[in-house]
Amino acid sequence: MRFDPATLVYDDHGLIPAIAQDHVSGKVLMLAWMNADAVARTLETGRVTYWSRSRQAFWVKGETSGHVQELVEMRVDCDRDCLLILVEQTGPACHTNRRSCFYTGIKDGAETELMAPEV
Amino acid sequence: MRFDPATLVYDDHGLIPAIAQDHVSGKVLMLAWMNADAVARTLETGRVTYWSRSRQAFWVKGETSGHVQELVEMRVDCDRDCLLILVEQTGPACHTNRRSCFYTGIKDGAETELMAPEV
Repeated sequence: MRFDPATLVYDDHGLIPAIAQDHVSGKVLMLAWMNADAVARTLETGRVTYWSRSRQAFWVKGETSGHVQELVEMRVDCDRDCLLILVEQTGPACHTNRRSCFYTGIKDGAETELMAPEV
Repeated sequence: MRFDPATLVYDDHGLIPAIAQDHVSGKVLMLAWMNADAVARTLETGRVTYWSRSRQAFWVKGETSGHVQELVEMRVDCDRDCLLILVEQTGPACHTNRRSCFYTGIKDGAETELMAPEV
């Protein structure tokens, strides 16, 4: 079956959450949002492209930082309301310069830093 | 720093997306939603508990199916608006009986099934 981004289920803002996962290590890098056009652009260009909710604009990941995400494979979940994006990540995925945005763990009720920024 | 679920950033519906990842294989299993009480219950009980948007009720994963998720570690992202939940998953995570909800891949513009239901 041909894939049509219009068949995905978007929220009230026309967005769908997209989980970026490192295709080699399996590390979950970040979650960001796409609209139908961002899904189409990601598939067409092979460069992972989100929709920035704060800037209300396309966000080609790494366009300014150089920390690009090359698309390896896009997956859709059973409810068609979430995407899993397997990526080849150049450098850190997080704006804090950490490999992953999920660098804070909750241990015994306290927050603990799991990962240092890359240098 | 003590962790307080009230310090997370919730959407207009009071919800935060939670990504469940198999703590052994690294496989991303599903994405569901939590409110502040579901976050607290998950941490208190060690049993991953979402908020069902369709039923508008707490959803203790696996309570009816037996396919429970035991909490291994909860992580918070840099913007505090997404959770990564490392879990010990019993059986399939997906209601279709597949290990993961992300069983549909997009390859060369077509949808392809990557994973069969467990028997």
